[in-house]
Amino acid sequence: MEAYFGPTIEIDLAAIARNYGRIKSQLSKARCGAVVKANAYGLGAEQAAVALHNAGCRDFFVATLEEGLRVRTRVKDAAIYVFHGFRKGQQPQDFIAHNLTPVLNDIAQIEAWNNAASAALHIDTGMCRLGLTPDDLTRLPPIARTVPLVLSHLACASDPAHPKNKEQLALFKQILNRFPGIPASFANSSGVALGSDYHFDLARPGRALYGITRGTTFPPDMENVVTLSAPVMQYRALTQDETVGYGATTVAKKGSVLATVEFGYADGFMRSLAGKVHGYAAGVRVPVVGIISMDMVSVDVTAVPAHLRTPDLRITFIGKEQPIDVIAEMAGTIGYEVFTGLGPRIKRIYI
Amino acid sequence: MEAYFGPTIEIDLAAIARNYGRIKSQLSKARCGAVVKANAYGLGAEQAAVALHNAGCRDFFVATLEEGLRVRTRVKDAAIYVFHGFRKGQQPQDFIAHNLTPVLNDIAQIEAWNNAASAALHIDTGMCRLGLTPDDLTRLPPIARTVPLVLSHLACASDPAHPKNKEQLALFKQILNRFPGIPASFANSSGVALGSDYHFDLARPGRALYGITRGTTFPPDMENVVTLSAPVMQYRALTQDETVGYGATTVAKKGSVLATVEFGYADGFMRSLAGKVHGYAAGVRVPVVGIISMDMVSVDVTAVPAHLRTPDLRITFIGKEQPIDVIAEMAGTIGYEVFTGLGPRIKRIYI
Repeated sequence: MEAYFGPTIEIDLAAIARNYGRIKSQLSKARCGAVVKANAYGLGAEQAAVALHNAGCRDFFVATLEEGLRVRTRVKDAAIYVFHGFRKGQQPQDFIAHNLTPVLNDIAQIEAWNNAASAALHIDTGMCRLGLTPDDLTRLPPIARTVPLVLSHLACASDPAHPKNKEQLALFKQILNRFPGIPASFANSSGVALGSDYHFDLARPGRALYGITRGTTFPPDMENVVTLSAPVMQYRALTQDETVGYGATTVAKKGSVLATVEFGYADGFMRSLAGKVHGYAAGVRVPVVGIISMDMVSVDVTAVPAHLRTPDLRITFIGKEQPIDVIAEMAGTIGYEVFTGLGPRIKRIYI
Repeated sequence: MEAYFGPTIEIDLAAIARNYGRIKSQLSKARCGAVVKANAYGLGAEQAAVALHNAGCRDFFVATLEEGLRVRTRVKDAAIYVFHGFRKGQQPQDFIAHNLTPVLNDIAQIEAWNNAASAALHIDTGMCRLGLTPDDLTRLPPIARTVPLVLSHLACASDPAHPKNKEQLALFKQILNRFPGIPASFANSSGVALGSDYHFDLARPGRALYGITRGTTFPPDMENVVTLSAPVMQYRALTQDETVGYGATTVAKKGSVLATVEFGYADGFMRSLAGKVHGYAAGVRVPVVGIISMDMVSVDVTAVPAHLRTPDLRITFIGKEQPIDVIAEMAGTIGYEVFTGLGPRIKRIYI
């Protein structure tokens, strides 16, 4: 093949770095880490980690050992914390050999790890998900190694007025009295926006790095990172009214021009967006018509000037014109789910 | 690592082969092909193609050239049709060198292909998506090569009573008069169930192979193919009422036992399922509690006998107890979208 003209996700690594800088500038004393789990929310963990490392980040967070190993191939001199901790089927050496730090979540993990090397501790202050409970702390096995980090996780940080934020903060502070001198981490992206009381020693933003802003106090500041576009495969100038797509649910009118575009739900274009979502073609807003298919979708490009309806035309579905938060809200979900759902057929291009 | 205990998708290749046999048995004269596009609906195109080839399939359908190349690495003596046809940036040699057959969808593709080798033709009889229109056929460029297949696609086959089925059938038959002696293909899974009038020379089922039955006349016949399960990461016996997860949307009661399970929306566990979906643990139906997180979910396992709540417990979310069609309907979508959305962190195990 000479060149690639299929669907693409352009990921602006410089924008990720600038978003990192914006978050960092909110922190007075705390260091700024970065969450790159789930393949950096679907955008590419290795590439994002390198860009963030170049921007000064030295603390990375991933979900699993496998993710940690991937990031370690590209980032040598930084801490990598593994949220899921030390799991059945793993050996301490799997972590130690690659200088990965498990986040131990319960007494069973602490016992299994058995002081093999330094490990972080996760305290549950109100997620009721992973982490040591206050009760667990009263019967903690002896920890013979330096603990590099004690962390907890906010449940309601995206709603600054939620009373749970202050409750969790008070509980976390109380628990930290048991760990004098040990660095603490509490704030995700929304937690950073809650103010310096929530910052402690290390912030660990995720979604704000990638331009997801919905439901937070950050919206005006974060920069768009992702541009997703797909090529037109075929035009269809209708000489009569015609039903479009599976189920014949929608009628396109005589005289309209439809474009069949190479972007379907197998690529992460959620079916729930049908009937709501638009694309942008040469700057013109163009509605999606009918049901979204597995590998393609129909778009009404009648409003695009005829001389621009060429085989080279691409339709942009996520980008500055239609940010991730807008499309996620139309799909009834959050940007995180849209990003992590983008499929493997779409070529990632890093700029 | 000694062994893998993370989330898994068990894919029963023998069940795919048996489903292929069931569909084939519905065909009196037509051959039976198989659609393995979108990585065989997310389940693994190479593995599915080998299983289907062993079951006698010699006609495979994929969406893109890249998918065709992947299937060709595993299946040597079979036709592989590429639905998206010959696209910008590709060379005829990309197809010819691997004996892949493009499905040419419009006059522009036919002209660009320029009789480089045999190619199939796609006629649009009512999808208004890809394919030559009846009008296009009146101005077809000369085709100097043997056409191995003329195909069209049903829009409403999953609704046997829909009048569009017969309209499309009549139009396809009329068009085939222009292509005497050339094999024809019309029926997807639902089209096979519409009866022998719809079968022509080659059927090309997709979803029924993979056990997706919703909205069709096949439900009693197709066999479950996929079992998706994930391990418990941590148990939490509640000593007081507690809110669970992000947004503190749900309260779990004192005395209940929650399990945090390693399966989140980054793995394809759709957020829209929260509050509706169950898992199965040791045969017991266990409800999901609260919002689905990116990497994990909380499940109420109070009903599971205490001696079974071990670190080895796995929760099954898709399988015989909760078939793909049931979970898809709860998510407000179709099984195809759930399968194609299953994430790369889940290990595929072929049995």
